[in-house]
Amino acid sequence: MTREEIEKLIDERVEQRLAAQEARAMTIIASKGTLDMAYPVLILATTAAAMDLETSVFFTFYGLDIINRHKYANLKVPPVGNPAMPVPVPNIIGMLPGMTAMATAMMKNWMGKVNMASIPELLDVALESGVKLIACQMTMDVMGIKKEDLIDGLEFGGAATYLGEAAKAQINLFI
Amino acid sequence: MTREEIEKLIDERVEQRLAAQEARAMTIIASKGTLDMAYPVLILATTAAAMDLETSVFFTFYGLDIINRHKYANLKVPPVGNPAMPVPVPNIIGMLPGMTAMATAMMKNWMGKVNMASIPELLDVALESGVKLIACQMTMDVMGIKKEDLIDGLEFGGAATYLGEAAKAQINLFI
Amino acid sequence: MTREEIEKLIDERVEQRLAAQEARAMTIIASKGTLDMAYPVLILATTAAAMDLETSVFFTFYGLDIINRHKYANLKVPPVGNPAMPVPVPNIIGMLPGMTAMATAMMKNWMGKVNMASIPELLDVALESGVKLIACQMTMDVMGIKKEDLIDGLEFGGAATYLGEAAKAQINLFI
Repeated sequence: MTREEIEKLIDERVEQRLAAQEARAMTIIASKGTLDMAYPVLILATTAAAMDLETSVFFTFYGLDIINRHKYANLKVPPVGNPAMPVPVPNIIGMLPGMTAMATAMMKNWMGKVNMASIPELLDVALESGVKLIACQMTMDVMGIKKEDLIDGLEFGGAATYLGEAAKAQINLFI
Repeated sequence: MTREEIEKLIDERVEQRLAAQEARAMTIIASKGTLDMAYPVLILATTAAAMDLETSVFFTFYGLDIINRHKYANLKVPPVGNPAMPVPVPNIIGMLPGMTAMATAMMKNWMGKVNMASIPELLDVALESGVKLIACQMTMDVMGIKKEDLIDGLEFGGAATYLGEAAKAQINLFI
Repeated sequence: MTREEIEKLIDERVEQRLAAQEARAMTIIASKGTLDMAYPVLILATTAAAMDLETSVFFTFYGLDIINRHKYANLKVPPVGNPAMPVPVPNIIGMLPGMTAMATAMMKNWMGKVNMASIPELLDVALESGVKLIACQMTMDVMGIKKEDLIDGLEFGGAATYLGEAAKAQINLFI
């Protein structure tokens, strides 16, 4: 083959290969500690792992509550500042102490109706299916959180650790 | 050409092609039902479509309100828990029932000043320019939302549907 | 070499190259003006720049406060609607005018403990390390913000400007 023919062949095959390219990895930064944001993090992570995507979740700021063994079974849903709540809660009423409990109970009721696993159960599924769970070391230092406060099976790192994972992935979400 | 020459040629052309590679697709997960988060979703989606990116929006959790025909013309802006509101609202005042209405009116006034389309109008533009709008089936089941509560022209799916789209895209945002 | 041998060689080298491919660029949309969301934006952006990723941050909606010279030294942390606050604040108490100040002081105290730079300092680092900071022109028009209200060293653009950057990047976050 001539050089021109080889160049044409290379270009064609590279185009074909790139057109067929799909993500092989996903990362999620979990930055919120509310029940309504913990669910998307863990539903997406476990579904991605089931679809054979290499998946990492980096828990930072309040998101560390999702893997805090003292807190993760009792994450709450905020009723205030959330005008999109399906049962609209006027702000002044959302302030009453019982409303966070009510909004949280409503979400747990919904999730129960579709047999959705609890947050601790979803974390077990994530670990069993090979999802890498990374706790933000800087947040732990800043907030005085110890390794024994967190669940087993974690890795630890900072922004550079996260970016190292994200650089290999194509689906990178901040939740 | 020798094998060594061909190898060098392949590597050069692949590098060139990868350096020139740009995204061909974008996905957005729309998870909030507030007016101030509906705008970025639809402005980005319609702009991306105008730039010939294949664009999908996956509406989940409160984000379903954006495509709910009973709600989408009346999305609200939360004044509380938002210390960055340009007109600062002390929290205790943000609680008064009229403040959500006032924060919402302020945003609608802003958007009117630049002739920004309304949410229903932006959805029409999105559908006309080929943006794929996907309603989260699990959220619909969980919250008891029916297909007839939502606008026409939607597709329906779950986390796996979303990830199938995201795996082909390079710009993937969670809003 | 025969055509078949060359085709095989191309495919092998392309696979190798794609497997080794890492992101070269990152974009962040900064949409919130709170201190707790300004930190992730600027910590991620400056770390990415230090790791030689080409990095752009697009400041839109309330996120413009992060680069507003009248506001950026005094961003606040919202105590309400945030049930994950490490020191749990019942909503009715979160409403008292002093609580935003207290939640903000708590975060500044945390950040001081690990010698974390302030927001203005992190912006200086970002600009010095070549991070592209882009102010959303439409938000400026909508909210009546002038160039002289914002810090020096910015670029200006809209959704299409952002998407142009994101199309070249692989790590694209909405914060």
